Order: sequence, then structure tokens, then C-alpha cells
Amino acid sequence: MSASTEPSPTPLRYADAGVDVQAAEASISGLRMIAGRASRPEVLGGVGAFAGLFRLGGGYRDPVLVASADGVGTKLLIASALGRYEGVGQDLVNHCVNDILTAGAEPLFFLDYLATAGLPQEQRLELVAGIGAACEANGVALLGGETADMPDLYQPGDYDLAGFIVGVAERDAILDGSAIEEGDVLIALPSTGLQTNGYSLVREIFGVGKGLGAERDRELLDEHVEELGGTLGEALLAVHGSFLEVVRPLLPRLRGMAHITGGGLPGNVPRILPGGLRAQIDMASWEPAPLFAHIQRAGGIEDGEMFRTFNMGIGMVLVASPPDAAAVLEAAPGSWRCGVVERRAEGAPAVAGLPE
Amino acid sequence: MSASTEPSPTPLRYADAGVDVQAAEASISGLRMIAGRASRPEVLGGVGAFAGLFRLGGGYRDPVLVASADGVGTKLLIASALGRYEGVGQDLVNHCVNDILTAGAEPLFFLDYLATAGLPQEQRLELVAGIGAACEANGVALLGGETADMPDLYQPGDYDLAGFIVGVAERDAILDGSAIEEGDVLIALPSTGLQTNGYSLVREIFGVGKGLGAERDRELLDEHVEELGGTLGEALLAVHGSFLEVVRPLLPRLRGMAHITGGGLPGNVPRILPGGLRAQIDMASWEPAPLFAHIQRAGGIEDGEMFRTFNMGIGMVLVASPPDAAAVLEAAPGSWRCGVVERRAEGAPAVAGLPE
Repeated sequence: MSASTEPSPTPLRYADAGVDVQAAEASISGLRMIAGRASRPEVLGGVGAFAGLFRLGGGYRDPVLVASADGVGTKLLIASALGRYEGVGQDLVNHCVNDILTAGAEPLFFLDYLATAGLPQEQRLELVAGIGAACEANGVALLGGETADMPDLYQPGDYDLAGFIVGVAERDAILDGSAIEEGDVLIALPSTGLQTNGYSLVREIFGVGKGLGAERDRELLDEHVEELGGTLGEALLAVHGSFLEVVRPLLPRLRGMAHITGGGLPGNVPRILPGGLRAQIDMASWEPAPLFAHIQRAGGIEDGEMFRTFNMGIGMVLVASPPDAAAVLEAAPGSWRCGVVERRAEGAPAVAGLPE
Repeated sequence: MSASTEPSPTPLRYADAGVDVQAAEASISGLRMIAGRASRPEVLGGVGAFAGLFRLGGGYRDPVLVASADGVGTKLLIASALGRYEGVGQDLVNHCVNDILTAGAEPLFFLDYLATAGLPQEQRLELVAGIGAACEANGVALLGGETADMPDLYQPGDYDLAGFIVGVAERDAILDGSAIEEGDVLIALPSTGLQTNGYSLVREIFGVGKGLGAERDRELLDEHVEELGGTLGEALLAVHGSFLEVVRPLLPRLRGMAHITGGGLPGNVPRILPGGLRAQIDMASWEPAPLFAHIQRAGGIEDGEMFRTFNMGIGMVLVASPPDAAAVLEAAPGSWRCGVVERRAEGAPAVAGLPE
């Protein structure tokens, strides 16, 4: 028998291993309060049971459940560096809402997974408050979640955050891009910034969250940058917006919708195009926000890599027939015509007009 | 402008920041293959869209969706130390299946969240293969998931894993414990080991995953322990079992069900008891597996703390009326009568018979 299996002199308790059950319980009571506000009449019972219950009811003809899982990426490290946690909670929910919106789904409920080692109670509640606020704003029930204490897997104060969403759509109203035709119009909805993608590259460029020290990270992020009209930190923490309110009334006019996340325009627009069609993007139709030029210059990044990594100012691409497109452009604030659907030659790329 | 915003000499690419998009794509194709096996006829479209689609259909009178989010805790660090990843994927799914089973739900679909920095492709696929195999075994569709590369947030090779499940039950068949009465019988279903709880304490006791080196961790875990009839590592990695197959045919006979996870019997059984009732546990009715005694002795842990931290051999507690209990005990392999529901005096604890 090895030495480590000898009895310890003082009895060990679970808290000695870095798992504070009482703190977890205080967090659950804070969570209950937040979930109470971010609820819907369909929710049965409360947070604390082994599972969350949501009464879908018999009001649908042929309901399809639409689900997605997501994280916030290393935007979390920027949030930690600046001690601002509420925004990333909102990022997480809005990202998920947009993902299922692309299928034409109404979001119903959300669950979160928060894993950490020693993130103080106050910061945990800030994260969950952000999640709750965004759920409330989107009319989504915060149905439950898991808070996991994982000492030795996370560095003290580090954490990760994942979100899960479920929505519903009638089967005959599902949007999957299959109705997209040659000549359809691509309509851009503006992003608020990087949304939740490209942060590892940005951190590499500016050296943030790379072990150079919390003080130095904060200093760099808090510096005013003329070109950005504010600090780099503010620009990087801009909240990933939800497109639900703008897009919901337009759904009957749309043939497809791409959420511009990791992979940018060339990675995401092709996901909804039927075979034999391509997206011809009109790069002259917009000027990406100054943040993108600032990142590109600082990192010496090539144009093509910028478009493959960042959303470059476009949060969502909607596809509509020309007559519907006119109505969509009028109804969606800040939207613009960013391209057109064309026929695609065999073996040609599904996106044209962007830098290689 | 600070020095770090000067152009870099060589153009940076996203892969330089530790995010390997091609590896992620290879993983997606492996995931597609696995998800293809762990599917159901209700799944529309494939993994790769922005969201997963599951056709619930109009066959339900008053459907209630039952959802849960979970992780595996620091059992992940034991799996890493031994280089065995498939089991924790199964743990994750089975944990989720059991959680919604407590409400009487049939599991429909599952999504995973895998976050890592530099976990090799082979290990990622092993994790997802475990998830897929458990989904298949439970008849659950693997509807999608997110694989996130998060350099600087995770140590190289570290990872975290979260799961999200949705099931369905008719509203009038929901089990919530409210029908439980004085005199009802508590029936234990055996656990396979620690399931997914208490690993941080176990690692503290044995000094595993505490930075003492991979080789030393592996050596300790691979040592044969007479009392366990095998190695400590094998005992600790025993897969969290799914109770779906055993419990599903028994659901009409049950009044409540508690999944014994974090908090053990005293933390979980009270969650389903109506006010004014308590669970009187008969500790003489079973002998916890040798693993629990081994842990207790090695850590010098008090009895009460053992029961508050570990499941102590009981994976699930079912509650049934005395006549139904007889049928349940006969039908469920390895089950036993572990207690009874009694009246509870005002202010008295909701569980009796366990060490303080």
C-alpha cells in the first residue's frame, strides 16, 4: 500500500478539496431569483429538481424542436481581465437564440453550464444575471443549469460557460435554405463587434490573457484608442446582439438565414445554399467597423484570413426573393443589400467576391 | 499607441493562436459518422447546420419537455491520467438520461459541449465515440454539439465536457414525488461506483491530478489494490450506469425517483419528498462497495461526510406504494428495500437513519 493511502491526521471534508457546497447553495438561491424573472407560463416546477419541465402543450400541428449548444470562446478571458462578467452571459444566450432563429424557430427555454475553480460568488451571480437578463429580453425561460466546481481542472478564478437552447417551429415553416433560388438577394444585418468569434487570434495579437499578468492586460485593454473612439476592452466586450426581435416578423418573407460565427462569411453562408448556387458578396456595399482595421493592422493579417476569422461587420445574412428583399430592407434597421445568389459552376467555391 | 499594436513581421493566421480549424473540421466529420449511428427517425437534416432539428410531431396529448444540463466533474482528470476517454463520454450521457428519467421522461435527443486546448484529435473522437455509444444504447439522438478550442483558458491537453438532454412526458404522467405518502417504500438501485460525484475529494486524498506529475498519477491509479480486486483507476472510472432500461417499464408503478448525485442520499432524496414526510433509511439493508471503505480509510473521512459526498452504493432511489414495491423489487435486478417514508415532525430533517 502506498503512503498516500494511510489515514490522514485530520478528517478531510469536501470543502478541503476546493468544492464549497454552501457557496454552491447560495448560488442556487441567487439563480432561483434570476430564473423566476426569466420564466414563462409554460414552466412547471422550479429550478432545483433533477430536470426542468416545460409544457409545450398540444397547440402545435407538427412541432419540430430546434436545439443548439454553444460557448463564448476566449472572450471569457477578456471579460475576466476587466472584471466584467454580465456581458458574456448575454453573449451566450444571444448567440444561441440567433443559431436556432436561422431555422425559423421561436426560442422556448435555455440551460447553462458554468464550470469553475474558485470564481467568487459575486462574479458567478453576475454571469448568471447576464444570462437571466438576456433570457428575459428574448422571452426565453431559464429552465435550469449546472454549476460545477472543478478544482485543478480550472486555474483559480478561471471558468467556462456553455449554453443550450431549445425552440420550436411548425414543420412547414422550418427555414433551411432549400427554397433559395438564383437571383435571391443577400441582406446583411450589422454585427455589434466580434460577437463571440476570433478572440484567440485577437488575444495573440495584443498579448492579452497570455500570462503577461493581470495588471498589464487591464492596462492595455483600458487604453483609449483614438480610432475606436473608446478603449480596446470596450470594443472587444461589445455584446453579441440578438436578432430575434428584428427577424421574427420578417420570417414569412425569408428563404434562409446564416449566423456569421466562427469561419466568417465564407464559412457560414454556404451552409444554407442549395447545390449549384453561390453567394456573390458585394464588398463595396459596406465598410467594416474600425475595430476590424485596428486588429488587422496590429496583427499584420491578410484580408482573406480576416474574412475567414471575423464577421467583418455582418452579424447575420438573410436571403429573400427580390420583392420580399425590398420589404425586409425597409423593416430591418441598419440592414443593407450585401450581395446576390448566383449560379455556381461545378467545383467553384460557394462564396465569391471575398479576398482569397 | 502601445508597441503591441505595431504590425507583426509575419502575417498571423488563426492556427497560430492555437485554433486549428482544419482539425475542428476533421472532428466534425468524425462526429457526423458517430451521430449518424446515434440517431432516430425524428431527426431532420444533419449535424453541421446552425441548429439540430427534431420532429416531435403531433402524437402527444399534452407534451411536457424535460431538460437537463450536466458535466462529469473532475472524473475527467482521472480519465486523462489514464488516457481513457470513452467512458467519460458515456458517463455524461447516462447522467443526463437518469436526471430526466426521475420526472418519468423518455429521452429524445442530446447535445454535447467539448472545450479544450490542444486535446489531440484521437482523444476528441474517443470522447465523442463514448457519447455516441451511450446515446445509441439509450435510444437517444445525438442532435449536435459544440467543440470549442480555447487556448490559454485550458492547459494544453485539458478539456471540459458538458451535456444537455431533452426528453418528453405526457403531462399527466410526470413524476414529481407529490403523490408520495407515509408508508411508501424506498427501493435502491445499485450504483456502479462513484458515478460522477466526489472526485475532487478522492483526488485530494490520493493526490491525483494535483500537479505531482502524469507518471506518478498513472502509477498510483494502475496499482493493484487487493481490497478492490483490481486497480484504483479501474474502480474510479467505472461508468455511470443508465437506469432507463430497468426503470422505463416500472414507471406506472412509481411515485417518485431520486438520482443520487452530488450531495448523496441526504442531499437528493429530500428533493422529491412532499412537506411533512421524511425518508427513514435502513443502513443495515446494504453494504457499500469496498471502494467506499477504501476511500474513507485513506482519507480518514467521517461517516456523515461520506454519505453527504458519495452515493455509497445507491445510484437511484425509487419510491412506490407497498403493493407496487413488491413488483418493482422483483423486476429490478439487484434492487433492495432501503427504507420507508415516514411522517416528519416540524423542523426535523427530511432524511433519518444516516450518520450525522
